[in-house]
Parts: sequence; C-alpha cells; structure tokens
Amino acid sequence: MIVALTGGTGGAKFVEGLRQVVPARELTLVVNTGDDLRWWGLHVSPDLDSITYALAGLLSKERGWGVKGDTFFCLQAMGELGQPIWFHVGDRDLAIHLLRSKLLAQGKTLSQATMEIAGKLGVQARILPMSDSRVETRVNTSIGELSFQEYFVERWYQDPVKSVRFDGAEHAQPAPGVTEAILSASAVLIAPSNPITSIGPILAVPGIRAALAQTRASVVAISPIIGAAAVSGPAGILMAAQGLPVSIAGLAQCYQDFLDIVVADTSEAEAARQLNASGVRVHCADIIMRTADDKAKLAQTALTLLGEASAAGIAGNRS
Amino acid sequence: MIVALTGGTGGAKFVEGLRQVVPARELTLVVNTGDDLRWWGLHVSPDLDSITYALAGLLSKERGWGVKGDTFFCLQAMGELGQPIWFHVGDRDLAIHLLRSKLLAQGKTLSQATMEIAGKLGVQARILPMSDSRVETRVNTSIGELSFQEYFVERWYQDPVKSVRFDGAEHAQPAPGVTEAILSASAVLIAPSNPITSIGPILAVPGIRAALAQTRASVVAISPIIGAAAVSGPAGILMAAQGLPVSIAGLAQCYQDFLDIVVADTSEAEAARQLNASGVRVHCADIIMRTADDKAKLAQTALTLLGEASAAGIAGNRS
Repeated sequence: MIVALTGGTGGAKFVEGLRQVVPARELTLVVNTGDDLRWWGLHVSPDLDSITYALAGLLSKERGWGVKGDTFFCLQAMGELGQPIWFHVGDRDLAIHLLRSKLLAQGKTLSQATMEIAGKLGVQARILPMSDSRVETRVNTSIGELSFQEYFVERWYQDPVKSVRFDGAEHAQPAPGVTEAILSASAVLIAPSNPITSIGPILAVPGIRAALAQTRASVVAISPIIGAAAVSGPAGILMAAQGLPVSIAGLAQCYQDFLDIVVADTSEAEAARQLNASGVRVHCADIIMRTADDKAKLAQTALTLLGEASAAGIAGNRS
Repeated sequence: MIVALTGGTGGAKFVEGLRQVVPARELTLVVNTGDDLRWWGLHVSPDLDSITYALAGLLSKERGWGVKGDTFFCLQAMGELGQPIWFHVGDRDLAIHLLRSKLLAQGKTLSQATMEIAGKLGVQARILPMSDSRVETRVNTSIGELSFQEYFVERWYQDPVKSVRFDGAEHAQPAPGVTEAILSASAVLIAPSNPITSIGPILAVPGIRAALAQTRASVVAISPIIGAAAVSGPAGILMAAQGLPVSIAGLAQCYQDFLDIVVADTSEAEAARQLNASGVRVHCADIIMRTADDKAKLAQTALTLLGEASAAGIAGNRS
C-alpha cells in the first residue's frame, strides 16, 4: 500500500500522476482539511474535493480545482443576492458540498462522508481526511488573523504574514486508519504541496508525525520549491514567515524527523549537492507538471526512488 | 393595503397580474408554507419562492415555477451522486434555498428570511409566510401518508387520496403581521389556488380564518375550478377527497365563513346562476391566464369588484 500526504493544487496534480501509475486499490491519500470552511452554510473541504475529483478524473485542468467544464450560475445568483462570492463554487461542485453537509448533519463523520462521496464517484483509492475533528489553519497577518481561504483566496495572499497556527490541532485525533496506513505502508509520499499550510496541518495532528517517523516505509517528498520560490502559491512566503529558508533545504527541515529522500527540480543541482552534503538524500527530476505525462512521469520517478530506497534499506534510519 | 392569500402555480400567475395593477407597496401576500420541504439538506419553500420570483419578475413562464432561464447542472450532478432529483432545483434557484437555509440556521425566522431575500431581489411588496412554525400538508393516499411534494411532484398525484391534514397547524401561530394585515386590509383576495393544499394550510393556522371573517374588507376569491375540474393540478381530486363538490359551489363552501364574491369563468354562467341563487355573489370573467395581459386583466377585474363591493357595503355581513 502506497500512502501519500497531500493538499492544495500541487498535491492534486501529483495525485493525478499517481493515479496513472498506481492501481487505485493500492493507494491511500491522507488529505489536509485545515482549509475547510463553512461557505453559504455548507461544509466545504477544498483539498478533499480536489483529490476526489483528481481520482475520479473530474478535476478541472484549467483551474486546478473544481469540476472540469463546471458552470457558475448559482454563484452568480448568490452574488445578485448580495452574498460573498470570492470563494468560487461551481454548480456541479456544489453537489459535493450539499451532499457532504447533508451527511455530516445526519451525524456521519468527515471520513464516512468522504468515503461515501468518493464511492459515488467511482473512486477506488482510499481517501482519508487527516482528522475528523476540526483543525483550522489560521494565518496571522498584518491585518489580523485570517482563515486560510480568507488569506489565500479572498485576499490573494497579499498580506504580510507573521505566523501560522492550526487551531484545534492539539485536541484532534488522526482520522480512523491514518496512522495505521502510514505504519503499514510499503512507501510514503509527501506530495509537492505547501509544507506549511497543506502538509503542515496534517503533521500538526498528534500522532501523525510520530507514525511517519516510526514507519518502516521509505518517505519521499517531492519539492514544491524551485530556487527560492514556490512553483505556485504562497509556500515560499509562509515558509519564510515560519523562519524557514525558502529552498529545498527548508523543505527538508520541515520533514527532517521522517524524510528519506527529496525530489528536487533538475535546475537545483547545486542546492541538491549542498543538501546531500548535509546528509539529506536528494534526487533531481523534472518536477513541473504541465501535462498528464509530466504528472505520471514524476509519480513514477517517486515510486522508482521508493523501490530503490526500500531495496537499499533506506528508512528506519529515523526511528 | 390589498392582501392576497396565495400558493401554487395558479397563485403565482395571479400575483404576476396583481403586480401589474397594484403599486408594490400597497400589496401584502400571505403565502402557503405547507408545501415546504427539506431538500438536499436545505429548507425549500416552493410557494414563497414562486411569489418572490413572480414579484421580482424572475418567475419562469414556461415552467410556472423557478427562475426563468435557469440551468440544472447541480441537479444533474446530484443525480450522478445517487441523490434524489425528483424535486427540480435549478442552479439559480438553489441560491435562494442556500441563503434561506443559512439565515434560518443563524436563528432568523422564516418571515425574516423571506423579507431579507425579497429585499435583495428588489421586491417592494410585503411577502408573509402564513406562519413561522412548521405546518406540513400531509396527504393520506392508498399507498400511505405522503408529504405534499411526494404526492404532487414525486408521484405525479396519481395515488388515490383519502384525506389531507396539516401537521403542526394546531400549535402554529400566524406569522407576525398576517392577522393584522387581514384585519386592516382595504381588500382581500383569495388567489385561484388549490383551496385544499394551497389556501387550506393558511386557513388551518389558528387565527387566520377568524381574521378573514372579522375584517371589514371585502373578500373576493378567484376560482381555480372550471366545470368539474381544476384549471391545473390536483385541486379537483383533493376537494373530492375532502367530501366537497368539485365546482365553484365547492369552492364557495371552503370559504363560506368569510367569502363575499367568487370570480368564476365565463363558461360557468349556469353554475354561477345556481350559486347566486343560493346566496353567494358570483362574477363571471375570463379566469384562464395565458399572457401577461390575461393576468393583469383578471387582477384588475378582482380589484374593480372589490371596489364596487366596498362602495356597496358588501362585507361585514360575515362578522
């Protein structure tokens, strides 16, 4: 069983690659829910949705989120009713939020709702929210504390960031199956997601970081950073705000207690050499995913590395 | 102030007529909520919506319900998720259900939510739900008891009906302003709505029927019946199930304790003569509303009758 920790648009793209090279039934996704929000009275889980759509072949390639070919008539009508519309929900996308909200109102857990929705869409891979409890990423900015969506979507991550915290994390538990999946995995992947606000919330749930440190599986992280900036989004800004170098070295620092190998961009030969010298294994590959082929190739690269690492007994050096 | 009791598609059409001949600020609509339902986890008030759309100029003329030009992409996606889709909700229509549900979840009353939504759509007439309490029309059929929407929409009113009841009515109160509006009205109209399941629930709310009997305003009911059948929908079936003649005489019987004048179809001269002979005033007019002009003309006819009745001191003969 291959376990991938994922969140954000980079994570969804990578999962589109994994989907092409790993049989669905051998894949478990542990997904960030720190970005979840109440929107128009509904429970929206942007990262669970993106991963579900990616696995169902429904993810919009143009936008990188939401359903391909979706329309926005309800959104338009909500705007005409004076409701906020900065978080874009398509008409087809809305069906997922309605169904999830209904299932949660019926007393089901987020895990159960996620499994039911994925099943309805024919997804055979296992999608696990990081936790069934509320853990909310809060971004402390120069204009005050914002939810991640307020910071990222509503305000275009323009506000200087002081720090990030994960509200509720200290009392949260991993969703059923998360630590078990990590501990029994044959390989663990960290998607090229924002290490602070996509992977960070997952690691903030007590027990998950320890499971990653304990698992006998090798752990490979694909970098979302090239040079001193994120491939997309605010990963660089947020790493800097957390006092980390914005580089693959900073990434390795985020994951230092469980990381075996970093996959860095081919353009990063020098940074890779330096990081290698400091004792972190680095493999260079094309990490920019433009086409379905790019995605499959990167996923395959990660799997090959994991196979080699496993054969060479790389792992366990952490526990 | 002109007060109209209304529900259903006939009621919405009539309100489209009233809107053309009565200044919006002089119009109060008391609307059936016995058809309200939870749908996809949302609070849907079909009659409040139709009246709101009618007054906002948004009502679909083709369907007689919902928003003109609406699309159904969310509905389609809900179907693909295995959810029930027999109650058709358009993408733009959905915005109203989302907003209402959100406002109710925030602790607002149905009256307050209705006023807020109408205001956002620029409606200046006053729309009052019959009650802020739950009153649910239940139709006892040969296959068991159904909600009105199950009976009417899901099962196309094919099941033989034994009786109709209004669950919760005995403990309900009229929404704020309803009895006051009726008591202080200059004229009261009963729209050509189903007397059993559109007007019936309104009359079942304790205090409303008494207010209609007490008001000094004349009360004119427009018939939804021609000959021995409803112009549309199950009004005839349901009148028969309640032991009433399916005719303008049956209609007059429904409203006997407060009715001053019935507007019947021009084709009903003989039935009108008989009903007149039994002491009920009947006026014949074209009651089929195909065009905007038909609607305006019928509304104007009703208003003229009310003016004449008022001048002649017709009313008060009931209290």
